[in-house]
Amino acid sequence: MNKASISCFPLSGTTPLFLDKNENPFSLPPSPREELRQILCQAPLNRYPEGRSSLLRAKLADYVKTDESQIIIGNGGDEILYLLFLALIDQSGPILTLEPTFSEYSHLSRIFRRERRCVPIELDDNGFNLNEEAFIDAIALFSPAMILLDCPNNPTGIRLSSSFLRRVIELAPCLVIVDEAYVEFSGNSIIDLFREKRWPSNLIVLRTLSKAWGLAGLRLGYAVADSDLVSDLDSIRPPYNINALSQEAAQIVLGYREWMESRVFSLRYIRDHFIQEINRLDGWEAYESEANYVMVTSPWDKTKMETLLTAENIHVRFIEMPGRKETFLRVSIGKEEEMRRFLSLLEDQEEVPSFKEMPGA
Amino acid sequence: MNKASISCFPLSGTTPLFLDKNENPFSLPPSPREELRQILCQAPLNRYPEGRSSLLRAKLADYVKTDESQIIIGNGGDEILYLLFLALIDQSGPILTLEPTFSEYSHLSRIFRRERRCVPIELDDNGFNLNEEAFIDAIALFSPAMILLDCPNNPTGIRLSSSFLRRVIELAPCLVIVDEAYVEFSGNSIIDLFREKRWPSNLIVLRTLSKAWGLAGLRLGYAVADSDLVSDLDSIRPPYNINALSQEAAQIVLGYREWMESRVFSLRYIRDHFIQEINRLDGWEAYESEANYVMVTSPWDKTKMETLLTAENIHVRFIEMPGRKETFLRVSIGKEEEMRRFLSLLEDQEEVPSFKEMPGA
Repeated sequence: MNKASISCFPLSGTTPLFLDKNENPFSLPPSPREELRQILCQAPLNRYPEGRSSLLRAKLADYVKTDESQIIIGNGGDEILYLLFLALIDQSGPILTLEPTFSEYSHLSRIFRRERRCVPIELDDNGFNLNEEAFIDAIALFSPAMILLDCPNNPTGIRLSSSFLRRVIELAPCLVIVDEAYVEFSGNSIIDLFREKRWPSNLIVLRTLSKAWGLAGLRLGYAVADSDLVSDLDSIRPPYNINALSQEAAQIVLGYREWMESRVFSLRYIRDHFIQEINRLDGWEAYESEANYVMVTSPWDKTKMETLLTAENIHVRFIEMPGRKETFLRVSIGKEEEMRRFLSLLEDQEEVPSFKEMPGA
Repeated sequence: MNKASISCFPLSGTTPLFLDKNENPFSLPPSPREELRQILCQAPLNRYPEGRSSLLRAKLADYVKTDESQIIIGNGGDEILYLLFLALIDQSGPILTLEPTFSEYSHLSRIFRRERRCVPIELDDNGFNLNEEAFIDAIALFSPAMILLDCPNNPTGIRLSSSFLRRVIELAPCLVIVDEAYVEFSGNSIIDLFREKRWPSNLIVLRTLSKAWGLAGLRLGYAVADSDLVSDLDSIRPPYNINALSQEAAQIVLGYREWMESRVFSLRYIRDHFIQEINRLDGWEAYESEANYVMVTSPWDKTKMETLLTAENIHVRFIEMPGRKETFLRVSIGKEEEMRRFLSLLEDQEEVPSFKEMPGA
């Protein structure tokens, strides 16, 4: 029985492989785990958590080299996005984003009854790229109430240039949210542009511990902004929003920065190797990425792709690209053996005729 | 040096006594603590938590004897309140509440730019009570977009009658939120009224693990509602809103129901004894309560009261009662020795002239 025919039939007991949520595949090493064991069961759970998450904010401020008064923490970046939409409740104007972009931006626009205007990311022979002038024009054209830019962009993995971001912040008549959920994989943060300068009053940089830090289970996002803006958001934030266990656990793990950086380094290496391997396959294409996921076009249609992946219990995200017919997948970067498993599936389909096409079948 | 003079000077090192947040004073016993130790440090924190909190919802459904599809979980009841206000974004009309009531209702009304109409809880020789007819009239008069009733009421501790709640639900042209944060101390839940009957489509019962269950640190609230309404709220809920550690820890502690009930029993006993003791003091009055806090009127003005409490490092909540001149305190029920400490402070002030009034001073 060859691998190709195995993949035609769902095998009960096949370990699921989650390459769909851009999670970090590496779990915590023994040392922080032992610290968690000591600390978490001692937390006085009958008391409300510290309401402003002060100790955790101090650790995050230290990590991004800014002042604690510039940090706000949410249950995931999502909670901070909710607060930002809520803060705009009295203002008119659409939300301006890229397209494609993080799906939560359109979800929140719908929930808060906001029109969303988008500037498309284009795909040409050089890969994905943004027409920066078109975006600048859109600011003047639409007078948005808020601009949301994910950098690196999800799902394409491209990074927006610093000069472009600086122009957007200068020209925008509104808040500019730069969502740096994946910034550690890229290494270029807009925060660095304003180290020695005055922080723009309309800039909010959104970050998370879910990706590079490998703490998706804690649901901790944070933002860096002007301290007045942080105070404004604090005034509409739910009281005691961050539970005691997440606060404690995050403080411990933030002490293991070298571990985080070594994992990021590994994931970048695995990512770049994965892109090369995909591009060796006939009809497949993987695009450069500065994040922990890669956009891939498949020569097969979505149905075939889904059937194959379902049979193998492999989970990826299918992406719609406006005006394009190809099947786009966003594949999160897992461990080497996980990416090997994904690649084997494609290689087997290439090398061996499928069951139906086999002589005599 | 007598106790009264001690209380005039802040003593560095005085243990703070928190009777201001209606927390449960009892921490977890060794057995669930040991389970937490085993489980929490093994949680795969690099993965997103289960998005619908299914296992925890099943445990909560079991506890309130309803179906899992009728349960939604939030980061505290607060997050569910945010979602309810958000769900009304397209509807006009004010929010109708009691006054006084849980402070978060007015906070949320301000944030969401909602007018709030209130029906006052009155104080007479029989203690606090609500003019039910006035509330029923207010429903017709104001056509509210949502009715928020805390039962037991915070801060007065009174319970609203089942017949009144039933009438409100029948007559209301809108959602009726019955906030039962403290219901375990009262023992009468509106959920019981609809055990054998069809659940009203406009009723949402808000609950929490922060009070009787003693898990304020986890920030877990839940609501029981019609399953269609739960689906609607789910569609506007932030993704993966409940972190993995809170989900795990709550599941463990919900297995210790007898422990919770014994603590509730103790707190009721301490509360009733505390009320008696206060009422023995000249000029002081404590009112009956069905929750884990008691409203107290002091014969002293707010400034004197604050000075005294600050000096002793005791924290309570001062309450404004519209149209009343007395100083109202809401005092959370702690352990017996904690309530003894609070009472001693008042007794000392009664028995001994204060430092300034002493002969020769």
